[in-house]
Amino acid sequence: MDHFHQNHILDMASLSKQEIDYILNTASTLKDISERPIKKVPTLRGKSIVHFFHEPSTRTRTSFEIAAKRLSADTFSISASTSSMTKGETLLDTVNTLQAMNPDIIVMRHSASGAPHFVSRHLNASVINAGDGMHAHPTQCLLDLMTVREALGKINDLRLSIIGDIFHSRVARSNIIGFTKMGATVTVAAPCTMIPHGIDKLGAHVAKSFEDAVSNADIIMALRIQKERQSNYFFPTEREYANFFGLTYERLKSMNKNAYIMHPGPINRGVELSSDIADAKESLIMKQVTNGVAIRMALLYLLMGGTRNAHSN
Amino acid sequence: MDHFHQNHILDMASLSKQEIDYILNTASTLKDISERPIKKVPTLRGKSIVHFFHEPSTRTRTSFEIAAKRLSADTFSISASTSSMTKGETLLDTVNTLQAMNPDIIVMRHSASGAPHFVSRHLNASVINAGDGMHAHPTQCLLDLMTVREALGKINDLRLSIIGDIFHSRVARSNIIGFTKMGATVTVAAPCTMIPHGIDKLGAHVAKSFEDAVSNADIIMALRIQKERQSNYFFPTEREYANFFGLTYERLKSMNKNAYIMHPGPINRGVELSSDIADAKESLIMKQVTNGVAIRMALLYLLMGGTRNAHSN
Amino acid sequence: MDHFHQNHILDMASLSKQEIDYILNTASTLKDISERPIKKVPTLRGKSIVHFFHEPSTRTRTSFEIAAKRLSADTFSISASTSSMTKGETLLDTVNTLQAMNPDIIVMRHSASGAPHFVSRHLNASVINAGDGMHAHPTQCLLDLMTVREALGKINDLRLSIIGDIFHSRVARSNIIGFTKMGATVTVAAPCTMIPHGIDKLGAHVAKSFEDAVSNADIIMALRIQKERQSNYFFPTEREYANFFGLTYERLKSMNKNAYIMHPGPINRGVELSSDIADAKESLIMKQVTNGVAIRMALLYLLMGGTRNAHSN
Repeated sequence: MDHFHQNHILDMASLSKQEIDYILNTASTLKDISERPIKKVPTLRGKSIVHFFHEPSTRTRTSFEIAAKRLSADTFSISASTSSMTKGETLLDTVNTLQAMNPDIIVMRHSASGAPHFVSRHLNASVINAGDGMHAHPTQCLLDLMTVREALGKINDLRLSIIGDIFHSRVARSNIIGFTKMGATVTVAAPCTMIPHGIDKLGAHVAKSFEDAVSNADIIMALRIQKERQSNYFFPTEREYANFFGLTYERLKSMNKNAYIMHPGPINRGVELSSDIADAKESLIMKQVTNGVAIRMALLYLLMGGTRNAHSN
Repeated sequence: MDHFHQNHILDMASLSKQEIDYILNTASTLKDISERPIKKVPTLRGKSIVHFFHEPSTRTRTSFEIAAKRLSADTFSISASTSSMTKGETLLDTVNTLQAMNPDIIVMRHSASGAPHFVSRHLNASVINAGDGMHAHPTQCLLDLMTVREALGKINDLRLSIIGDIFHSRVARSNIIGFTKMGATVTVAAPCTMIPHGIDKLGAHVAKSFEDAVSNADIIMALRIQKERQSNYFFPTEREYANFFGLTYERLKSMNKNAYIMHPGPINRGVELSSDIADAKESLIMKQVTNGVAIRMALLYLLMGGTRNAHSN
Repeated sequence: MDHFHQNHILDMASLSKQEIDYILNTASTLKDISERPIKKVPTLRGKSIVHFFHEPSTRTRTSFEIAAKRLSADTFSISASTSSMTKGETLLDTVNTLQAMNPDIIVMRHSASGAPHFVSRHLNASVINAGDGMHAHPTQCLLDLMTVREALGKINDLRLSIIGDIFHSRVARSNIIGFTKMGATVTVAAPCTMIPHGIDKLGAHVAKSFEDAVSNADIIMALRIQKERQSNYFFPTEREYANFFGLTYERLKSMNKNAYIMHPGPINRGVELSSDIADAKESLIMKQVTNGVAIRMALLYLLMGGTRNAHSN
């Protein structure tokens, strides 16, 4: 593969194995820019990138902004509360208005699943999905793939267990598709109320038990319990959730000596993960954040026509 | 005219016909920067532009920010909710504090009519009025003039009909003054509750009927019904408003075969304009947005001492 | 002293007299950048500065952003309301996440006293305290020192009187420590409910009366009455406060012919200071704001390894 042909990054299903490899390799090449004394290259000078976040997010938005500025692009930020959509404007009108200002890339987070796909069909600008509803979060999956490949040297044949609220999680859906495509085996574990019907059709195995998911994994990815989305429908109390599906360092070590731990953040300490595990040497959580910047740099760069080797010197 | 002598852009009444022509010509010259692969010139490098928005606005604020960054200026954003005015500070203290940080231009939107004029008398920095109360919105008028001149080749002798809530609209007031000054005839049409007393003194004609305004126009500008400002005082229901003063493509074509359609946005689809008209080839709405960036680039550039021809190469 | 050895700027107590002098001298050198036509030097190009404001602030945040951009750094802004801390994330997790994106400096305002000290112990990035609870506001003290030194040619042996809500004021605490360290005598005056027990241990004298504080001062610094923090516990009404502890020009001149007036802003006109005094020639208030940018430029520059003389040419 000598060139990247996607105009948009909407979900993992649209990317081929080759394209994913190409993105990961590009990200590895760009990663060291963030470690230089002068963390900036002029690659995207004069490009305009709009960050259109219809749901609040610091972590993902900041990661994209840092990625854009390290490539010297100009960034513009629009949030739900300040956009005219509060005045009753349709999504398409908002996006057409943005388009008329001629940005190169629109990075978009939206509460409605499919919103980035919809707008991508009406725009000249490239669209990057930064999370849509319960559907997809491809840049999270790509940074998780990169982190695993760095830590274990490969993705093929690895066993990933995802534990937590699979039902509401776009991170889970994107990772099931992405890791399976790259040759890993993905298993999910959660209270049965949080395992959506048909998850096996995406390629995931449903673990027989929490212990089964933990003990048979090279990587354990805990998901955030989104307190704001939980009512009593899904589990009785956080404490009960933590008792059955929360990981402590002691509990982890009793089941699995060698697994790495991941979490998309922000962590509820004491619920999904205890503090000792979040900060342990097996935790890849901070590496995930660091790689997030590299993956987003790679995507911005490739969508603007870059080739993998341009910045290796 | 070989130089631009205004220190501030406060309203259309303060600009001469020659100055308006000069601004439009400069904007046409700068417009192509936004269509280049590298959308950036170093013209305003090291200049500081403060966007002080006391009323929320995405469209206008983003347009100004894009304009500023395409000229390489540094931008700083202050909104009403974050400014110390929520702590009881006076407008003048806020602006004097900004002044002490030595910005070159303050772009200001304020709910109080006349606020930008007031602050311009106390500052060294240039002030651009980005909309003050029900008074003026000169950059909107300038981008409308530019859009009409591009589409029809001239402004002189054209007939512009403005339809909608004239009473609350700074866009209407600025356009009546600006288009009249440039030789156009401006007619307004609205439910009689929305036509302010004395509007003819600004130079506008009041149409006998909606049909009269639509059929005798080269350009029809629909104004946004600002739902947030309407109570039942002005019209009974949106549906009734749409029946009498809303345009559909069929209705337009039955009255006027050749008119162009404009709207300052955001559109209430199905109220002022139906969807088929908003997206029709007669619609100049997206061109208005594109020209907004060019007009704002021109104003920033001219206020900083630029001359029209500097960037024609 | 030929180099600056602090990694963080947390409070005035941590800075030596020599270091303070070095910062003030550096700020004087950098100040003229803000008065040039091109207000920008490439010194911090490719450095990433995060402004993490857990309490709202326009004045201080804008001052830091202007300082950063005049040195060509990239800036990223995170506010309390948008950060994941609203999702229950701990302060340390938020800051570790930021750290993983590899910023060079984190400028931090927080409602909890000591929060910047806490995070500075866990980070590689430098931390600048932009105000923590009722504890410290070192950049305000440094800009006040700079302003006094400019106006009076020295700090040693001067008499500073601070009037107002000493109890809640981090500005008062930092200025008592900073001015005392530089050889000035600091006196405080306030309703007795607003003078904290033990303030003399920081080095302050408590004035016998308001008149005593005003008449025996070279500089009078009025503090903001923070209406949002006052209940009826501290004084009966604003009007009564103004009667006893507010300064008018007439009242000032009857007590002291030569004193300069300072205020950290934003002013409650008619409470701490009357309008005639805020705008009088004895007022250094606008100079404080201007010097705020210079001090912050100096700190960013020195923390990134700059030496005092690098930019004197």
